[in-house]
Amino acid sequence: MKIAIAQLNYHIGNFEGNLQKMLQAVADAKKSGADLIVFGELAVCGYPPRDFLEFNDFIERCGASLERLREASENIGVVVGAPTRNPRVEGKDLYNSAYFFYNQMLLGIQHKALLPTYDIFDEYRYFEPASEFKTILFQGKSVALTVCEDIWNVGNENPLYTICPLDEMMDEQPDLILNISASPFDYNHAAERIRVVQANVQRYKAPLFYANHVGAQTDVIFDGGSLVVSPDGAVFEEMPFFEEAVRTYDLDEVMQGGINRVQPKDKIALIHDALLVGIRDYFAKLGFKNAILGLSGGIDSAVTAVLATKALGSDHVRGVLMPSQYSSDHSVQDARALVQNLGIQYDLVPIQPMFEAFETALKPHFWGYTPNVTEENLQARVRGMILMAMSNKFGNILLNTTNKSEMAVGYGTLYGDLCGGLAVLADLYKTEVYELARYLNKDQIVIPLSSIEKPPSAELRPGQKDSDSLPPYDILDPILFQYIEKRQGPRELAAMGYAPELIARILKMVNVNEFKREQAAPVLRISSKGFGMGRRMPIVGKYLS
Amino acid sequence: MKIAIAQLNYHIGNFEGNLQKMLQAVADAKKSGADLIVFGELAVCGYPPRDFLEFNDFIERCGASLERLREASENIGVVVGAPTRNPRVEGKDLYNSAYFFYNQMLLGIQHKALLPTYDIFDEYRYFEPASEFKTILFQGKSVALTVCEDIWNVGNENPLYTICPLDEMMDEQPDLILNISASPFDYNHAAERIRVVQANVQRYKAPLFYANHVGAQTDVIFDGGSLVVSPDGAVFEEMPFFEEAVRTYDLDEVMQGGINRVQPKDKIALIHDALLVGIRDYFAKLGFKNAILGLSGGIDSAVTAVLATKALGSDHVRGVLMPSQYSSDHSVQDARALVQNLGIQYDLVPIQPMFEAFETALKPHFWGYTPNVTEENLQARVRGMILMAMSNKFGNILLNTTNKSEMAVGYGTLYGDLCGGLAVLADLYKTEVYELARYLNKDQIVIPLSSIEKPPSAELRPGQKDSDSLPPYDILDPILFQYIEKRQGPRELAAMGYAPELIARILKMVNVNEFKREQAAPVLRISSKGFGMGRRMPIVGKYLS
Repeated sequence: MKIAIAQLNYHIGNFEGNLQKMLQAVADAKKSGADLIVFGELAVCGYPPRDFLEFNDFIERCGASLERLREASENIGVVVGAPTRNPRVEGKDLYNSAYFFYNQMLLGIQHKALLPTYDIFDEYRYFEPASEFKTILFQGKSVALTVCEDIWNVGNENPLYTICPLDEMMDEQPDLILNISASPFDYNHAAERIRVVQANVQRYKAPLFYANHVGAQTDVIFDGGSLVVSPDGAVFEEMPFFEEAVRTYDLDEVMQGGINRVQPKDKIALIHDALLVGIRDYFAKLGFKNAILGLSGGIDSAVTAVLATKALGSDHVRGVLMPSQYSSDHSVQDARALVQNLGIQYDLVPIQPMFEAFETALKPHFWGYTPNVTEENLQARVRGMILMAMSNKFGNILLNTTNKSEMAVGYGTLYGDLCGGLAVLADLYKTEVYELARYLNKDQIVIPLSSIEKPPSAELRPGQKDSDSLPPYDILDPILFQYIEKRQGPRELAAMGYAPELIARILKMVNVNEFKREQAAPVLRISSKGFGMGRRMPIVGKYLS
Repeated sequence: MKIAIAQLNYHIGNFEGNLQKMLQAVADAKKSGADLIVFGELAVCGYPPRDFLEFNDFIERCGASLERLREASENIGVVVGAPTRNPRVEGKDLYNSAYFFYNQMLLGIQHKALLPTYDIFDEYRYFEPASEFKTILFQGKSVALTVCEDIWNVGNENPLYTICPLDEMMDEQPDLILNISASPFDYNHAAERIRVVQANVQRYKAPLFYANHVGAQTDVIFDGGSLVVSPDGAVFEEMPFFEEAVRTYDLDEVMQGGINRVQPKDKIALIHDALLVGIRDYFAKLGFKNAILGLSGGIDSAVTAVLATKALGSDHVRGVLMPSQYSSDHSVQDARALVQNLGIQYDLVPIQPMFEAFETALKPHFWGYTPNVTEENLQARVRGMILMAMSNKFGNILLNTTNKSEMAVGYGTLYGDLCGGLAVLADLYKTEVYELARYLNKDQIVIPLSSIEKPPSAELRPGQKDSDSLPPYDILDPILFQYIEKRQGPRELAAMGYAPELIARILKMVNVNEFKREQAAPVLRISSKGFGMGRRMPIVGKYLS
């Protein structure tokens, strides 16, 4: 038997686009002699469809796509994810299901039992968990069909769930396990995925074919890396990261095992590739081609500009230099050197005239008040306005250049440097932005070294440095990581050796700035805990603040 | 037996503040001769605590508050909501529990079984559902303890859940039912709550004491309206809406029934009161006293100003008039009349100088492009910047004045009129804003009649009217309501008689503007489907767009 895995870049709600891709993959798989093709979870509609699932019309369109795939299953098995209406009155209205078609017939449906409801996932919001588990007979083989999380409750020290779907199917002695997934990227996830798939293979003594999504849906990035694991636990193949692929495997060869073909998983290289896909798909799926961004001469905007140029092409990125009276000469020099290195178009718009217009207009109202953060914010907001005006006028999308450290502690101006359609770096701590900058420069200096080496500054008042307001990033970032990614509280952090006053200061900065993150652009998610849907915090609260 | 209900305004994460309120309520209840006092769901930490629940430290602080309440239970039963750690390794780490203390002992704990995971609710994200149900014996009476949603699966035509907790306790023949809730307001909710509580009483033939939260947590507003329902189904008392109260009831009197004390539930009056609480608590709980807002002379900003003045006092609201070259004379006149009626401070800051500074600076870059929406947005953003500068300088919070119709179709400028810390009216359709304006004027004209009567206009170009870009609000709003609140799709809307082209145009406007709502201020929620956490939509998608 030959089994094809289709690792495709779906588009949420683009039923016809998704269907055409899948029909093409079916045709390709047939040509390669495949007996069976496996698509991803909720492939017909894309993932995560969120509250579109509450619309009957949306579910009906999923059904219409399924119908077309059933028709296409002449002489080939087609396994595909789609929502199913729950026929019972009680419980949620839908199941998250895997359909198995063959010769235009439905061989079986397996609903998902383990519904991730944490981080970015909301599956219990929509779906009823499966309570029945049956293998499906296909060409003389007993096939155990599973959906994503269903295989993630194996060998876990703190399992989130009380059941394990494959355990329920073991009486039927499956010959092979299929898993259709929509399992998002983070920089540790590909390694973890292999570990989990291998744990299943070891427990159930059957080969496992795992089909993932690839591509970005706004903030959520899918890396692909679909897997074929032999019964001996060896990875027969790990499909490519961050690109679409349809590949066909001979089950007899897979059964033999002994081959271990895995890809390198360097953290920064993976993040780099993920961000390129994140940018590319945000533009492509919204129907835009061109990006604009502010270039300060600093490292964050430089890294963002390089990534945008790699993702969209140098003809499609426009940089805007907006020096103020407090900008150092080298800021403009560094930004100019960058645009030259990249070959991108740029505009120079000094902000002083507009800043002064505001100062003049506000002077009578601010009488008796001394200059403070207001004037710093004004400068950042003049820049935001210039960028948004250009974005509106030229029909391009403004990329936000904030990093995760700044976003965490609120070191940024709402409606100023927090403007933008997509926050490219806001899931990378400042120290990770440095690593990424060095990675981008590894073959050739693209980012001027002085952008990397000079002390970070917002340049909103004379001689200002980030370190005036914030602890050094090599101290700040590990504490933020422990608090945000690892959910460690004040006591745990103190036990790690950090000073209680420093901990209290940082945690308070994080918590009181939730109102800024609430209004921030969507953040390309590359860690296990990014800002956005995956981290839901009260705005008005009084905890550690 | 005498039973006190404490309907309190908790503050998320403010453990000491919440505890002191509760201890005072225990003391008051004792004075009134109560044998038992009942608090709300997750009262020790406030609701919804969201991902704070993932921090051990947060759970430990909940435990410390519980310990203090246990100590305070000398001679009085105390029923209170708090999270409990799940002792099993499998499943979610927490339960959402009701604790019953008496004489410093724990009489029992009942975990919540039905975990709302829809709209603004995410309980399955954190909690394992209860699987055991036992009544608790207190002073010779068998008490069935339930948590919020646990009583909402009765007499429901399309139940979300497959079990019904009180059914499981009926063998033990409870003498009374207690329910601790955190059940948010919408303008239909108080009536629905009575219906559901009565359905439980009728099914289980026992009196029911229902304790709700009151007050606002950012966007989510609790209306109180706690209930005591007699075995005959009569409402012995419906506690006040939108205010804290601790009241003691004699169970013998409740048992007699025949008394039906319910409050009027006029939609606009309820919305009015809810918005006042929403504004008041947003400021009080963040530690702010003063609001600022832009006054255009139009109805939305006028209504917001009146509500802010009622909520915070006329000394704590500042209006800013920012006419442009396109503003009509009557706009400034109407805004001036409003501030006079309200007795609030105001500033006049014409925007033309700043607008021109941008035009001049951008002219060389915009060469060859004709004026378009860019220039309209620039004006809106100059206003946003002025307001934010004043907010920063004076330390007050900017109130956003957008309505739900505008927010739905994207008729607003990101970083312009969408600026603000709190969107007061963004869950009211424009037609509802008119109703609210008339309600505010019912005893005395506060909002100038011309603000209500003139055709709505953004005044961003000569002679502009909302109706140039949008269908009339009396046609737009019902379609939006059906799509947003009722999740009706194109076919259902067409069946209601709307023209397919109009439906397609409106639904597309809603869907392609998700990116604006993603970055909008939190919205005071007064309907069953507000923008924000309760409505989760993909930004990059291609459904009905």
